Amino acid sequence: MLLAVDAMGGDNAPAEICRGAVAACERFPDLEVALVGLKPRIEPLIAETFSSATSRIHVVHAEEVISMDELPSVAIRKKRCSSLRIAMEMVRSGEAQGCISAGNTGAIVAGGVLVVGRIPGIDRPGLGVPLPAIDRVRMLIDVGATVRSKPLNLVQFALMGGLYMKHIFGVAEPKVALLANGEEDIKGDEAIAQARELLRQGPFPFIGYVEGKDIPIGPADVVACDGFTGNILLKLMEGLGTAVYSLLREEMGQRVLPKVGMLFMLPMLKELWTRFDYESYGGTPLLGVRGAVIKAHGRSKAPAIASALGVARDFVLKRGVELISQEITQGGM
Amino acid sequence: MLLAVDAMGGDNAPAEICRGAVAACERFPDLEVALVGLKPRIEPLIAETFSSATSRIHVVHAEEVISMDELPSVAIRKKRCSSLRIAMEMVRSGEAQGCISAGNTGAIVAGGVLVVGRIPGIDRPGLGVPLPAIDRVRMLIDVGATVRSKPLNLVQFALMGGLYMKHIFGVAEPKVALLANGEEDIKGDEAIAQARELLRQGPFPFIGYVEGKDIPIGPADVVACDGFTGNILLKLMEGLGTAVYSLLREEMGQRVLPKVGMLFMLPMLKELWTRFDYESYGGTPLLGVRGAVIKAHGRSKAPAIASALGVARDFVLKRGVELISQEITQGGM
Repeated sequence: MLLAVDAMGGDNAPAEICRGAVAACERFPDLEVALVGLKPRIEPLIAETFSSATSRIHVVHAEEVISMDELPSVAIRKKRCSSLRIAMEMVRSGEAQGCISAGNTGAIVAGGVLVVGRIPGIDRPGLGVPLPAIDRVRMLIDVGATVRSKPLNLVQFALMGGLYMKHIFGVAEPKVALLANGEEDIKGDEAIAQARELLRQGPFPFIGYVEGKDIPIGPADVVACDGFTGNILLKLMEGLGTAVYSLLREEMGQRVLPKVGMLFMLPMLKELWTRFDYESYGGTPLLGVRGAVIKAHGRSKAPAIASALGVARDFVLKRGVELISQEITQGGM
Repeated sequence: MLLAVDAMGGDNAPAEICRGAVAACERFPDLEVALVGLKPRIEPLIAETFSSATSRIHVVHAEEVISMDELPSVAIRKKRCSSLRIAMEMVRSGEAQGCISAGNTGAIVAGGVLVVGRIPGIDRPGLGVPLPAIDRVRMLIDVGATVRSKPLNLVQFALMGGLYMKHIFGVAEPKVALLANGEEDIKGDEAIAQARELLRQGPFPFIGYVEGKDIPIGPADVVACDGFTGNILLKLMEGLGTAVYSLLREEMGQRVLPKVGMLFMLPMLKELWTRFDYESYGGTPLLGVRGAVIKAHGRSKAPAIASALGVARDFVLKRGVELISQEITQGGM
């Protein structure tokens, strides 16, 4: 299986991206990777790994790079020789079965629609992030592919999320829900209410509206919302993590006893940290496009990139695109 | 100054509400409180406090109670003899200068509009919650008075929040911002973009769009958003708190070393906890109505009720209603 990697996207590109690709090839013997980007920069990075897996790494030259602050839809249209666009062209042509990028999220979404193309019947793709929670992983979808959503979009997000949790995460009967400002049917707005009625007829157990408190711990396996809300929620969670960490560090700096206490707690906290670490989940799938398109976190280092490639490989092996295509055709949604 | 208290609203009503009212009267010698609710239940509770401050507590009988799960606008219209409605009638008539309730949030908002009445020029009131953050308190407004918002609503939320932070929290030049799915001007939707243009001409320094990560720590003193988004964010924060606490407790239960470590850290954690405890802030003002209407948390106990009464008293003393009214009239927004 060949997967294309945007070697130039992300805060740690291209070094960590290249190392991650090599690590993934070492882990998965069936994997070949096309590293797309500036050949003169990528080749030495691959050479210095001294890994035998590099025989399954192919470097594809791309002149241009889309930066984090470019206007996504313009960049993807105009920069035809960018690493992201070329990686996506490889998916469209069928040469690669999927691609990953830690670059500009908006450009990945725009490229997913304009270059890779939507699955027939899908109105808009959705970015679904698997959130590590206390008891199990939940998917929050959409976290930023769209801004505002029609009822059809919310329904399709819930369905695609349900399929992902079922086939990729192995949840037998994923429970889907819509995010709202209260559990009662009178909450939400018109679009959400219409989506609710459609989801009641859907293939997955539908538990209605859930609230913000149900994201970290609650009854749903899939929580569907518009990308505006999902994006703000995801960033709030990231911000809270950073804020609590810096607060603890600041407080600890001035005292002795808490530091001693922290030494005793460190092993437990480290274990908890790995449970919540996005690097071990590694990627946010853009669901609804004709290929495995995985967005890795902008701050990804090699382990997260390897993990994102694992996610893309899994999606291809489990026929993610075909599953969504079938459901949309059969369910008529 | 007379403030009316809905003695029957909240999880711990009426006992904790009554005790909180007595505590507030002990703290503020200029305060008189009308406890509105079932007289036969309230009077013994007041008597058993043996406080001399009870001379400034007046019990106003109300036959009915609005429960947490009632349809707000119907309940406030039909239950004319409910404790909440009567407390609000006292504000409308000018008999009381403000009221507080730990009851049904929707009913408080509906009563704020239908009974107390809006400040002329205010299209919709907003619930603004002072969020204890790492460095300072920020206001998130609206957290659930509305669902979706017009540009005018967002602008008025930002202005009212700015006035609140300036005059109640003493922030000399409160910076206001709009919440969006990214900082760039192309983010958000049409309503948010229109609000942005209006706020650029506003009286407070406007810093544009902020993201979810900027709520716990970031440049704005006031973050304005629609009530749908604000409500989900607030509940997510509450849910995360509960989730992290239960996770730590579960993990600690099985181990010895972390427990020892926790003993060393306890004083620091307790101190941090009080900084983040909503009870010390005590109340969420419903801004834009003709009186100090303060929503206390449903789980409030006596200290939170006393604190909410302190917030209402402060709002009256600092002429919160007049400040908003002036700003709306002069600013033309």
